[in-house]
Amino acid sequence: MTMEEKAENAIREQVLKRIRPSLEEERKLKMVVDELLEKAEIAARKMCIGINRATLVGSAARGTWISGTHDLDIFISFPEETSREELEKSGLLIARELAKEAEAFEERYAEHPYLNMRYMGFDVDIVPCFAVCSASEIKSAVDRTPFHNIFVKEHINDLQEEVLLLKQFMKGTGVYGSELRTRGFSGYLTELLIIHYGSFRDVVYSACEWKPGMVIDLLGHGCVDHKEPLVVVDPTDPRRNVAAALSVDRFARFIEACRLYVDTPSLAFFFPEPLKPLSDREVLAILGERRSSFLAIVFGTPDIVEDVLYPQLDKMEMNIRALLGQHGFTVLNSGSWAGEESVVLVEMLSSTLPLVKRHQGPPVWIKSHAEIFRSRYEKADETFSLYIENGNYIADIKRKFPAAKELLEERLMTCSLGKQLTEAVKKGYQVLENEELCSIKYESFRVFLRKWKKA
Amino acid sequence: MTMEEKAENAIREQVLKRIRPSLEEERKLKMVVDELLEKAEIAARKMCIGINRATLVGSAARGTWISGTHDLDIFISFPEETSREELEKSGLLIARELAKEAEAFEERYAEHPYLNMRYMGFDVDIVPCFAVCSASEIKSAVDRTPFHNIFVKEHINDLQEEVLLLKQFMKGTGVYGSELRTRGFSGYLTELLIIHYGSFRDVVYSACEWKPGMVIDLLGHGCVDHKEPLVVVDPTDPRRNVAAALSVDRFARFIEACRLYVDTPSLAFFFPEPLKPLSDREVLAILGERRSSFLAIVFGTPDIVEDVLYPQLDKMEMNIRALLGQHGFTVLNSGSWAGEESVVLVEMLSSTLPLVKRHQGPPVWIKSHAEIFRSRYEKADETFSLYIENGNYIADIKRKFPAAKELLEERLMTCSLGKQLTEAVKKGYQVLENEELCSIKYESFRVFLRKWKKA
Repeated sequence: MTMEEKAENAIREQVLKRIRPSLEEERKLKMVVDELLEKAEIAARKMCIGINRATLVGSAARGTWISGTHDLDIFISFPEETSREELEKSGLLIARELAKEAEAFEERYAEHPYLNMRYMGFDVDIVPCFAVCSASEIKSAVDRTPFHNIFVKEHINDLQEEVLLLKQFMKGTGVYGSELRTRGFSGYLTELLIIHYGSFRDVVYSACEWKPGMVIDLLGHGCVDHKEPLVVVDPTDPRRNVAAALSVDRFARFIEACRLYVDTPSLAFFFPEPLKPLSDREVLAILGERRSSFLAIVFGTPDIVEDVLYPQLDKMEMNIRALLGQHGFTVLNSGSWAGEESVVLVEMLSSTLPLVKRHQGPPVWIKSHAEIFRSRYEKADETFSLYIENGNYIADIKRKFPAAKELLEERLMTCSLGKQLTEAVKKGYQVLENEELCSIKYESFRVFLRKWKKA
Repeated sequence: MTMEEKAENAIREQVLKRIRPSLEEERKLKMVVDELLEKAEIAARKMCIGINRATLVGSAARGTWISGTHDLDIFISFPEETSREELEKSGLLIARELAKEAEAFEERYAEHPYLNMRYMGFDVDIVPCFAVCSASEIKSAVDRTPFHNIFVKEHINDLQEEVLLLKQFMKGTGVYGSELRTRGFSGYLTELLIIHYGSFRDVVYSACEWKPGMVIDLLGHGCVDHKEPLVVVDPTDPRRNVAAALSVDRFARFIEACRLYVDTPSLAFFFPEPLKPLSDREVLAILGERRSSFLAIVFGTPDIVEDVLYPQLDKMEMNIRALLGQHGFTVLNSGSWAGEESVVLVEMLSSTLPLVKRHQGPPVWIKSHAEIFRSRYEKADETFSLYIENGNYIADIKRKFPAAKELLEERLMTCSLGKQLTEAVKKGYQVLENEELCSIKYESFRVFLRKWKKA
């Protein structure tokens, strides 16, 4: 064994020691799961609801859960011929029966309703689904999950610890999680990568060479072209890309993290130091160093799930950039943060522009256009000067919004912001400039500022 | 006759009254010319120099000169077989003989040497040329002129006054003169336009519809494709475009002037009010209104002819714009002026930029480039932050020149400036910013400022 391999193995053992569930944890999980599955079947029978079975799915079912995470996914599968209304109604009836002994619960809505509850310290989702024959014939997105469960259980062999290592590595490097906030790697994707490459080490070493267009097709049955940077064909559905949610930036960041790890392995990749919030003094220091202009649009965060909130924040950020760009402001960077309030933060070359603005007109020899342009600008109050350059009319005219702050204060609502954000912004928003950023005190916002444009 | 025609005729008569040479002027001119031609022939004979003849060419010879202009072009034509050395030597000997009675004279150099003198109040050029058989077989650029003379004299009939009107219209609207400072219409071009269209009025009405690609070929013998906006095939040389020196801006400005004149004829097109120099107060008012940033590069004007100076100033202006652009500054407008000193004036969105600058790197997955970029910027002092955007590395780094003034003070000499301007700038230059412009007191510079980006 080389020195490098020894070092890697030592890290591996230290990581596993922290993330491998203890026997005690496993025993408790098994007990809770058995209890829930039994209760579900009893409830169905009692209410004369015909279900096929109740099953545990997800990482808890596959032995790929990280110590300390207590998420359980219980799927209640109904015969395929059940109507959607029947499934939704009966599914909830059974779920509510289980929730009677929960510490807390609430009904939630994805493609159809499900129930989430806190039960003996576990975070449990009770999800009704159709028992279809194959993943390619699903009636609802969740119907796929049981097939994933079967595939992973059949192929994972004894590679569960490799999955744990890869998940923790991805968590530590900020690329784990397929929800729309992160657009990273899902648990199932992680498992497939381990099954394909055979070990954590082999995934990491292979990923160093990944490029967009990378295709992994375990069963060689892919039948659709995908445009995402990474394509991992679902073994249970040849048309589906398991990595469809992975953004190009998370893809690139993972490649980078793998290269840095191969170069200098360390525990820090798995367990990075948490970032400290920036102090006011540090915020001012950054402004002073960069000497660019920051604008923050601040408003109350609407009460919606993250998978709705974050795409709307992304859209808002893009449309704010576009609005600023249309008015001549050069945006260097942008980002968004959400907590109790939400913030879209924009860094510009400058938040002020001169009053004069070049307005390009038509060539002088396109007579009708040229005459309209000339008569429009010749004597207008807003015109500083009118001249010919390279045969075209140019009018130097007055800029409407020489200050970005005023532009956002007057025109933010003309941006398309998404339904719930539009409502939230309508209730009121503030535009803060440069040192006014210090008035946003939330710790997690200050951590977001510390990360500002750092890989 | 319509009201419009009557008004145009009235203007026409008023203009002609001011620019038509008086009988007295014509008599004096004829006398001086006869005297010069006779002296030239006598001198040649006396020195035993075999010349074909001495002739008057140009507008004075064609009756198309404007009252008050006293320019004479005397061409001494040598047999075609004369050597270039012989022509240059003998040409100057004859010219010097004539210059003996001049108020002042100097020898000048174009393609070959010629003599310019002040003689009885006239500005006289004595130019040696080869008497070739046709304009398409010239040995020197000036050899063409006698053929132009012959063509115009044969075809002008009684349209001399039309030429005078067109010339004065072009002077008044700033498009007359084919020298490199103006890049406008030459006298010969004006004459050809009149011969082609038949009258001043017809030129003006036709030009309203001109577009780039306009070709006028009086003899229908053009045999070369030209890319200039206006092509007027030389009747004396089918390969040559008489309008080759006309810039697209002068072309466009002439079209515009014709349209405005057709719309509202007035004497002001021929005799515009001279522009008053801007006062300091007015300079400051313009700066305050536009709120853009002005930088002036000021240096001593080298002692070179205008046809060398102005192209070099244009080149300098272009290269300064490029230098500023490369360093992130947005140039709105630029121009140059020359008097005792020369000035390149640049108007920018802003003459200062933040210290931070985005530096785009390679995609993360182009491994070798990505690793070089990362190691170059990861821990460099100049790096504010390093991150991934759309799969590419971006480094936010320190800008070398956040102030345009310092950039020009340090890097002006890296621009390619042309031979004589390089020498002039090496002797020293100043960079003035905004209100410092007021320290440039030359009246003609202040007139140039009044015209800043006005058609």
